[in-house]
Amino acid sequence: GDFAKIDNHRSLRTGFPEVVWGQDKTPQQIIQIIKTMRANHPVVMATRIEREVYQELRESIPDLQYYPVAKICAISSPETLPNRIGKITILTAGTADIPVAEEAAVTAELCGFQAQRLWDVGVAGIHRLLSNRHVIDEADVLIVVAGMEGALPSVVAGMADCPVIAVPTSVGYGANFSGVSPLLTMLNSCAAGIGVVNINNGFGAAILAGQILRA
Amino acid sequence: GDFAKIDNHRSLRTGFPEVVWGQDKTPQQIIQIIKTMRANHPVVMATRIEREVYQELRESIPDLQYYPVAKICAISSPETLPNRIGKITILTAGTADIPVAEEAAVTAELCGFQAQRLWDVGVAGIHRLLSNRHVIDEADVLIVVAGMEGALPSVVAGMADCPVIAVPTSVGYGANFSGVSPLLTMLNSCAAGIGVVNINNGFGAAILAGQILRA
Amino acid sequence: GDFAKIDNHRSLRTGFPEVVWGQDKTPQQIIQIIKTMRANHPVVMATRIEREVYQELRESIPDLQYYPVAKICAISSPETLPNRIGKITILTAGTADIPVAEEAAVTAELCGFQAQRLWDVGVAGIHRLLSNRHVIDEADVLIVVAGMEGALPSVVAGMADCPVIAVPTSVGYGANFSGVSPLLTMLNSCAAGIGVVNINNGFGAAILAGQILRA
Amino acid sequence: GDFAKIDNHRSLRTGFPEVVWGQDKTPQQIIQIIKTMRANHPVVMATRIEREVYQELRESIPDLQYYPVAKICAISSPETLPNRIGKITILTAGTADIPVAEEAAVTAELCGFQAQRLWDVGVAGIHRLLSNRHVIDEADVLIVVAGMEGALPSVVAGMADCPVIAVPTSVGYGANFSGVSPLLTMLNSCAAGIGVVNINNGFGAAILAGQILRA
Amino acid sequence: GDFAKIDNHRSLRTGFPEVVWGQDKTPQQIIQIIKTMRANHPVVMATRIEREVYQELRESIPDLQYYPVAKICAISSPETLPNRIGKITILTAGTADIPVAEEAAVTAELCGFQAQRLWDVGVAGIHRLLSNRHVIDEADVLIVVAGMEGALPSVVAGMADCPVIAVPTSVGYGANFSGVSPLLTMLNSCAAGIGVVNINNGFGAAILAGQILRA
Amino acid sequence: GDFAKIDNHRSLRTGFPEVVWGQDKTPQQIIQIIKTMRANHPVVMATRIEREVYQELRESIPDLQYYPVAKICAISSPETLPNRIGKITILTAGTADIPVAEEAAVTAELCGFQAQRLWDVGVAGIHRLLSNRHVIDEADVLIVVAGMEGALPSVVAGMADCPVIAVPTSVGYGANFSGVSPLLTMLNSCAAGIGVVNINNGFGAAILAGQILRA
Amino acid sequence: GDFAKIDNHRSLRTGFPEVVWGQDKTPQQIIQIIKTMRANHPVVMATRIEREVYQELRESIPDLQYYPVAKICAISSPETLPNRIGKITILTAGTADIPVAEEAAVTAELCGFQAQRLWDVGVAGIHRLLSNRHVIDEADVLIVVAGMEGALPSVVAGMADCPVIAVPTSVGYGANFSGVSPLLTMLNSCAAGIGVVNINNGFGAAILAGQILRA
Amino acid sequence: GDFAKIDNHRSLRTGFPEVVWGQDKTPQQIIQIIKTMRANHPVVMATRIEREVYQELRESIPDLQYYPVAKICAISSPETLPNRIGKITILTAGTADIPVAEEAAVTAELCGFQAQRLWDVGVAGIHRLLSNRHVIDEADVLIVVAGMEGALPSVVAGMADCPVIAVPTSVGYGANFSGVSPLLTMLNSCAAGIGVVNINNGFGAAILAGQILRA
Ligand SMILES: Nc1ncnc2c1ncn2[C@@H]1O[C@H](COP(=O)(O)O)[C@@H](O)[C@H]1O
Ligand SMILES: Nc1ncnc2c1ncn2[C@@H]1O[C@H](COP(=O)(O)O)[C@@H](O)[C@H]1O
Ligand SMILES: Nc1ncnc2c1ncn2[C@@H]1O[C@H](COP(=O)(O)O)[C@@H](O)[C@H]1O
Ligand SMILES: Nc1ncnc2c1ncn2[C@@H]1O[C@H](COP(=O)(O)O)[C@@H](O)[C@H]1O
Ligand SMILES: [Mg+2]
Ligand SMILES: [Mg+2]
Ligand SMILES: [Mg+2]
Ligand SMILES: [Mg+2]
Ligand SMILES: [Mg+2]
Ligand SMILES: [Mg+2]
Ligand SMILES: [Mg+2]
Ligand SMILES: [Mg+2]
Repeated sequence: GDFAKIDNHRSLRTGFPEVVWGQDKTPQQIIQIIKTMRANHPVVMATRIEREVYQELRESIPDLQYYPVAKICAISSPETLPNRIGKITILTAGTADIPVAEEAAVTAELCGFQAQRLWDVGVAGIHRLLSNRHVIDEADVLIVVAGMEGALPSVVAGMADCPVIAVPTSVGYGANFSGVSPLLTMLNSCAAGIGVVNINNGFGAAILAGQILRA
Repeated sequence: GDFAKIDNHRSLRTGFPEVVWGQDKTPQQIIQIIKTMRANHPVVMATRIEREVYQELRESIPDLQYYPVAKICAISSPETLPNRIGKITILTAGTADIPVAEEAAVTAELCGFQAQRLWDVGVAGIHRLLSNRHVIDEADVLIVVAGMEGALPSVVAGMADCPVIAVPTSVGYGANFSGVSPLLTMLNSCAAGIGVVNINNGFGAAILAGQILRA
Repeated sequence: GDFAKIDNHRSLRTGFPEVVWGQDKTPQQIIQIIKTMRANHPVVMATRIEREVYQELRESIPDLQYYPVAKICAISSPETLPNRIGKITILTAGTADIPVAEEAAVTAELCGFQAQRLWDVGVAGIHRLLSNRHVIDEADVLIVVAGMEGALPSVVAGMADCPVIAVPTSVGYGANFSGVSPLLTMLNSCAAGIGVVNINNGFGAAILAGQILRA
Repeated sequence: GDFAKIDNHRSLRTGFPEVVWGQDKTPQQIIQIIKTMRANHPVVMATRIEREVYQELRESIPDLQYYPVAKICAISSPETLPNRIGKITILTAGTADIPVAEEAAVTAELCGFQAQRLWDVGVAGIHRLLSNRHVIDEADVLIVVAGMEGALPSVVAGMADCPVIAVPTSVGYGANFSGVSPLLTMLNSCAAGIGVVNINNGFGAAILAGQILRA
Repeated sequence: GDFAKIDNHRSLRTGFPEVVWGQDKTPQQIIQIIKTMRANHPVVMATRIEREVYQELRESIPDLQYYPVAKICAISSPETLPNRIGKITILTAGTADIPVAEEAAVTAELCGFQAQRLWDVGVAGIHRLLSNRHVIDEADVLIVVAGMEGALPSVVAGMADCPVIAVPTSVGYGANFSGVSPLLTMLNSCAAGIGVVNINNGFGAAILAGQILRA
Repeated sequence: GDFAKIDNHRSLRTGFPEVVWGQDKTPQQIIQIIKTMRANHPVVMATRIEREVYQELRESIPDLQYYPVAKICAISSPETLPNRIGKITILTAGTADIPVAEEAAVTAELCGFQAQRLWDVGVAGIHRLLSNRHVIDEADVLIVVAGMEGALPSVVAGMADCPVIAVPTSVGYGANFSGVSPLLTMLNSCAAGIGVVNINNGFGAAILAGQILRA
Repeated sequence: GDFAKIDNHRSLRTGFPEVVWGQDKTPQQIIQIIKTMRANHPVVMATRIEREVYQELRESIPDLQYYPVAKICAISSPETLPNRIGKITILTAGTADIPVAEEAAVTAELCGFQAQRLWDVGVAGIHRLLSNRHVIDEADVLIVVAGMEGALPSVVAGMADCPVIAVPTSVGYGANFSGVSPLLTMLNSCAAGIGVVNINNGFGAAILAGQILRA
Repeated sequence: GDFAKIDNHRSLRTGFPEVVWGQDKTPQQIIQIIKTMRANHPVVMATRIEREVYQELRESIPDLQYYPVAKICAISSPETLPNRIGKITILTAGTADIPVAEEAAVTAELCGFQAQRLWDVGVAGIHRLLSNRHVIDEADVLIVVAGMEGALPSVVAGMADCPVIAVPTSVGYGANFSGVSPLLTMLNSCAAGIGVVNINNGFGAAILAGQILRA
């Protein structure tokens, strides 16, 4: 594996899983990296893995688990999973945002946190959000996932008393520009206290939330 | 006045004031157009008029009125103003959106409608909007003016039962791009029943609202 | 169906059909949402449904109708359809804009309005529009659908005396940018009284037109 | 004048005036270039010259003429002006487009052509254009100048039987993007036979028209 | 054929073929339009026709010809083709620009003009252009087709004494943005006398060239 | 002060100062809002206040303090300032980023946190950062401010074990696009655990950091 | 081969291989060009050749070699390869950037230079770069290939004492815009002495590096 | 001077002057940095210095020289200037590009190289370039500066046998977008062997050229 310089220090230092970004790698590269990583780390995960790729990976790594909605592969076990204190609360505006939210939720769980899910509470029907106020009130850190116009994080941050991580998704059409519209909405939010991550970056949101809970 | 072909039919046909777009014209052009128009129409108005321009215009047209926040000049009188049935309800997300909202409100009034104003009810403090629910419930047509991330029309349209006209403003900074961010938000709204006009186009919103009330 | 929070109040409040946005959902999700919705609403519709998806949906929902050009599925019957007063007039600039216009027309009909269709009257052959002047004169509300350069709504709004809803389509090539060019044209129209919706959003245009007719 | 390599062949070859692009040059550079040019050419002109710059230039070049709306300076006389056969017809959509149209008209005249002007016939009041149909029918070549949404060239090209040169202007606001919106409109026109030049490039349009008349 | 309003006046007025834009139409629509058109016009053509579509069309219209590089279908015969005086000279910067150039060339020929082709004379090897100087010197009107950085029209217009029509192509990669880069290059050309058409619009360039030759 | 709906609940709820966004407001509006706010809150601050505006405000509010680099006005006193546990560490890439970083630092201090400043450690001289490794190692939460290419947060996040908030600045020129270039850099960072705020939004970064320290 | 004007002077003049840009050409065109070229040049290469295309080419040109990661075909032999003095050092930020880096490396080798490869030393784990400092110190010219946020060239140029060529790649997602984000990063680098090439243009980087070594 | 971490190693290592980026700094900051730098380096320079700023700096640093076209300040003397072997050849397309080219030329001279200047040889008059062929043939490294459409580097690189550094300038108007158009042209050049720097970055081009000559 001379093509990839694996960073043995990172997960030791951070106490989080070792992660492979699967999207731009060949299955053979992913297999080789996972095998090297697992020698030194209790939890290894790979993101952006299509089902067909997973099936190819599993032939070489039989104990590889698959989370199909999140498109995440992982090697872990109840014993190896760290047991952290804290819960990451994840909201979506719509049904179509769930895959990105699941990338965040599964990552959070593989980091040892509890993931609380609340789906389909977008602003076009504000009562859906208002009738779940307690979820926001009780949150330690919030991940808010939204496509289309991406207005949900603004409303949530105005109600919440904890850090809000906003994740734009590429859900939408027309002048949505594959998620640029909700990205801009989130960056321009008139509610302070929001940190934005890249479009569809559920993984990054969960890592940031994990860092916050450890802070 | 051979440089401008004034359309005598339009205001007769529509029953709305004759309008001059002031922004890209010299004071001399504006004066000449207003003088020609007033010969045939009871109400004449000009938009995007800075105070200094108004002062120059007034020397040639002494009965010209000025609405400084809206930056509108007009010739009209209680007798000439048509008395239409219907009210146009105008909301802003913030204080800085007021000039655009006033352009809409004054235009509405010069068209003979009643303008109901509700300022500073942006989504980052959603209770401000919720405690004004009755304003939305009682509206015939809504103009919702917002800069920054422009999320207010989505929430309002989810609550309202009447047409919503969304006006993005250039209020904001950074990745706001002079109003492109709220414009995209409004076009991508997950709430149906919203018509969007150009950035800062309070005038156009009021004309559309007027057309709707007459429909 | 815990993944989707269906808003039982919306259609009751608005008297319009319940709607599912089909594009970003799996067939199983669509089936489950339609089944839940139909328990409480006389008319249920789903947009952006490809023929293959419809065939899968029909196995679970045998009475589901399909409008292939509009790509809309619906459950409704003459008895359940509300009978509203008013007609929505829909124009297209070209032949290729018809699918978006049909999304608007079928939505209008499922809301209980009459849809009047006038196709292929784009501005490059202005006599085609002029020889249909009566259609514009008799309209209560106009939906104007155009791709390419999107100039039709400007000309129509200059001729019409009623609200105009402009729908840009992604028809075009090169510097058209999948509909951004007609979108900008419509937002910048020098004719006042135009409300713009998102690219290809025939559905949203029809709902706005319906709101206007009820206003 | 070693900083500028003047191309003595061009005007001889083309029979058009020698031209200085004034916008990005210091007055001293412009003076030096004009003086060198006039030694060899009967007609010399400079574009994008503000009045203050002209006043500075005139101190060194007393016989320099100034066209204030077009912002063009020129050295020419009835004898030196070539007398070409042909007329260039120039239309504007609005009043604010006149300066760009005048840049075209004055350039055309300095090239020895006749310039026919028709201002303020934009598409929002289509009867203004229709009642001037004869101007289009009798044209040899048309220059159509428009800002805002820039729809005028499409309509004109659909009516005309001669080449159409479209000039977008930076007149507009909001989502107009300093002329990008009419530029895109013109490039995407569904009417064939239109050649587009850069935003506000009245000069280039006139040169192209002149080339066409000589073709 | 109520979906398409065919403009019987256009080709009579212009003396050019009737044209169908094939890209966004179904084969059945194209067949129906061609059949209606051919009843009244000697030459009918359709652009943007893939080979598979042609094969489907030919089953209904056996005498339909196909130009595979240009992707044009046509009905015409030596007798029906008008015999115009004049030649349209077409240059490409590279080999990959040939399909767009052929769209122009075949259109020119179907309009009755002679098409002179000169391929692969891009600016990165300027001697290729210089050694073909006579082609430019003898041209009546030039169509210059270029992708990548699109610099060829600037150089050609500096050498030519006739109108130049610039056609950007989507050939390129990376920061080329599907032809936007050469489009901007051509619009910003420091050589005057260039008219630009949309990306890949060989057809439009030929029609404009034809108009010029008739001017 | 009917134009602004002040949210008395927010600061009570959050325990942070009440804040006025000064950029788009008139001095009279700012004065009125501050006066209303100070009746109920121990700490009131206003951002984006130019020195001239401050001088006008001070005439009505004599005890108003001014932080000229941060362009912040505030009313506070040692007694009123809450004394929170925790330190916010702020880094800049260059000297020109200091004003944005000071907006963050002063906001942090007005929220009762300690602000640790480390300026001019941009990546083009990586030893400057490496020789300050201990600052990163000891941080609880990091705010990293960078213009130009904005690469600093990526390097810092790779070294840090705590949450990183990235603030792009509009420092730069050419293809920097007023901060869009560093904004994109930060959103695309290959280091996970970074939350991005709007261009120049030092204030928002500090509020998010404060929320994190309280989480 | 009349469609392609092969430039026999270029490789003689430059001493570099003759090159075919394969991406926008048909296999038949590529074959014909390679055959013509090889008659006059010792080394001929083609870039952007997919494996399937190579297999088709090989049937006509049996001695054609293929470099699958670089997607380059070549005709060369140890005797024909020039033996230049100098080494081109190539770095990548990640594993997914390797194909672009290999395009550079193989081109360098076909030009007769030595290529030194160092993969996966991106800035998010800065110690990977620091522990390879000697590679940078000993370089004559550096090619630095990076996608995502593209920060690596800035750090490398700050450490290096030789020219740095930066190659953005389209590796990334979301607000990466197919490589525009790293392209902007590289253009805005605060480290001087960096020349940027087009997105994914490994070939161009190698030719520039070769020119530099010969300078 | 604690606000700026001056990098004493850089100029020692590179043998080039110490440089201050003047644009985003206050005069007091610039004075302090220059004074600190000159203690350790024979040559110190500052870029982007307007004449008024220079006059303020000179009061504190009496021996500061000023190059008004280049807007560069410097402290140097014939003795301190290193005497390097090699010449940097600088071309401009137009007269308005000279300030950027002078920034490159003066920087080159302060680095100890000879600067050869050739102005106003843009592609619209290609004979101006061809009649200076010997300048290109004799160059060691070329800096080519161009605004408008930026085509000059492509033509030059096709003729040259040495590395070409392309500098886009913000000279132009309309669809030029402050230099984005020539930037894209240069990145998309079909001539290989071009390295591009940021818009108007004459300084960076000279440093890269200097690195190349030392390579
Ligand atoms: N879904 C994801 N979204 C964003 N970043 C990711 C994702 N998955 C992995 N990464 C990042 O990519 C890094 C691994 O990249 P690589 O070395 O190319 O496998 C991880 O350390 C993460 O920081
Ligand atoms: N074709 C369409 N275009 C735009 N909006 C739509 C369309 N179809 C459905 N919608 C909207 O999407 C909402 C349903 O979204 P969902 O809850 O995700 O099914 C509806 O209430 C509509 O407001
Ligand atoms: N290849 C083409 N590029 C640009 N415009 C075209 C092309 N082919 C046809 N057109 C235009 O499209 C019109 C026909 O559009 P339609 O009525 O939709 O078939 C023709 O009259 C032409 O003006
Ligand atoms: N005109 C210029 N264009 C681009 N980069 C420059 C320019 N002048 C200075 N720089 C860069 O800016 C650095 C100095 O930045 P600073 O430390 O902020 O003064 C220098 O080392 C150069 O790399
Ligand atoms: Mg929903
Ligand atoms: Mg407020
Ligand atoms: Mg048609
Ligand atoms: Mg007008
Ligand atoms: Mg070639
Ligand atoms: Mg510095
Ligand atoms: Mg890696
Ligand atoms: Mg010149």
